[in-house]
Amino acid sequence: MRDVRLKKLVVAGVGLIGGSFALALKAAGRVERVVGVGRGRANLERALAAGVVDETAASLEAALPGADLVLLAAPVGQNARLMARLAARLDGRTLVTDAGSTKQDVVAIARKLLGHHLPRFVPAHPIAGAEKSGAGAATAALYRGRTVVLTPLPETDPQARDTVRALWEACGARVVEMAPERHDRILAAVSHLPHLLAFALMDLIAGEPEAETLLRFAGPGFRDVTRIAASSPEMWRDVCLANRAALLELIDAYRARLDEVRGRLAQGDGEGLERLFTRAREARQRLDEEA
Amino acid sequence: MRDVRLKKLVVAGVGLIGGSFALALKAAGRVERVVGVGRGRANLERALAAGVVDETAASLEAALPGADLVLLAAPVGQNARLMARLAARLDGRTLVTDAGSTKQDVVAIARKLLGHHLPRFVPAHPIAGAEKSGAGAATAALYRGRTVVLTPLPETDPQARDTVRALWEACGARVVEMAPERHDRILAAVSHLPHLLAFALMDLIAGEPEAETLLRFAGPGFRDVTRIAASSPEMWRDVCLANRAALLELIDAYRARLDEVRGRLAQGDGEGLERLFTRAREARQRLDEEA
Repeated sequence: MRDVRLKKLVVAGVGLIGGSFALALKAAGRVERVVGVGRGRANLERALAAGVVDETAASLEAALPGADLVLLAAPVGQNARLMARLAARLDGRTLVTDAGSTKQDVVAIARKLLGHHLPRFVPAHPIAGAEKSGAGAATAALYRGRTVVLTPLPETDPQARDTVRALWEACGARVVEMAPERHDRILAAVSHLPHLLAFALMDLIAGEPEAETLLRFAGPGFRDVTRIAASSPEMWRDVCLANRAALLELIDAYRARLDEVRGRLAQGDGEGLERLFTRAREARQRLDEEA
Repeated sequence: MRDVRLKKLVVAGVGLIGGSFALALKAAGRVERVVGVGRGRANLERALAAGVVDETAASLEAALPGADLVLLAAPVGQNARLMARLAARLDGRTLVTDAGSTKQDVVAIARKLLGHHLPRFVPAHPIAGAEKSGAGAATAALYRGRTVVLTPLPETDPQARDTVRALWEACGARVVEMAPERHDRILAAVSHLPHLLAFALMDLIAGEPEAETLLRFAGPGFRDVTRIAASSPEMWRDVCLANRAALLELIDAYRARLDEVRGRLAQGDGEGLERLFTRAREARQRLDEEA
């Protein structure tokens, strides 16, 4: 499987994620022709001009004939519409994968809509988001050293799964497999919650009466914490809604922790604060050591 | 004032902040001899070995004779003790400045303890924290392009103020002046609150039953948001306590914003979420454009 080569790859949604997949496969010599489709005409033109895609198609249907693989890389809220259109036109050999940040939702949609094509669908999530979006942000290096999670179904054709795995490995990623439920619980904690917290902080400060002054004094710490608040609002709206239950639980857990901090601060409990900060610091330092 | 040159600088607390001030002044040819004092013997030895300081002294008192300037750069909780010791031994020409992240507290302490030396105290805050700490993290470049806030008192000798300003400018920083109250309100919003939020997030995730697994899937976003949770627990305990009132207000405002996000998510209000995310994104993008 290591020398998987695609004659034709269709990327639906040529943004940072889909565009970088195309560029990485091209750089690795794993794809001959990339066809881009999407809602934004200007973005597609940029993708074409930058060589992210070799051609564009007016619709997903028009792009499909002869495709070895279709990557769904639009905001996850579009997956149902895209899958319904795919299901009506797929031939018996085209594989389908996605790059969504949530997996239970796309699996449910695929079960409902893909019918007998279901075994050729390989749900995937490259953990390599960035605060930049659009085809202009795509790079061949985005997935190098990153983790890609596959959440294959019991019905998934092992060969389809191996093909998708080999392609991500060709992009330089480390590939792991797990159940969709487990994926969504994990990502709610280490990705979806941090995004929500960053959006909320940035929105709070930007809405203060003296926001301009405040932001003039924003140092590197504030910039780090809020960097992901520049991420795509549409994408994150869809992710949050798709993983709502897990995310609500985590917001509540976070609020409880924040209340604890507030309580200690209000009481002047310096020891308690330092204990909590020390636990956090040790965990964060371990994270860097293991990187 | 531009060619201020120190014969002898005393740095009390040779960590990232104090050590980088010493290195930057050395690199700019603005200081002949730096004497380091502090509680951690091993840290002082490292500072000496790395050329951050030229000598160490057993106590603040022993370091003082002949000093042109004393920089207080220990965690702000130590300022009262250090100032009391300074006040007893200062001669009539030594200037004193500090580098604390909070200013009302150090001003109050100085008013109480420095007596007739008060005019030679110039409160300062270089906004250049980092998640690294200790003399080993110090670099001559830390302050280049950063902002340093001076909060001089009505009593502050203008010449003392100009000297401290010139030294920070020699380190490559942009210097601004404001009242201590205003400084603390601004920094609570763009520095102290973000630190608290990052500590709370890191502590929450590290305390989850499956923390190790969760953290294996932490991508660049999580790392950005939590980077400052690796900051010094002692320093941040002191900062939080020193700026408690402003910080409690901001925690409450943040909680209200987070509750709003939670409510919209619980109701499936995608439009409302997207609106909030879009405001946050636009503000965050402006911040980068202005950098």
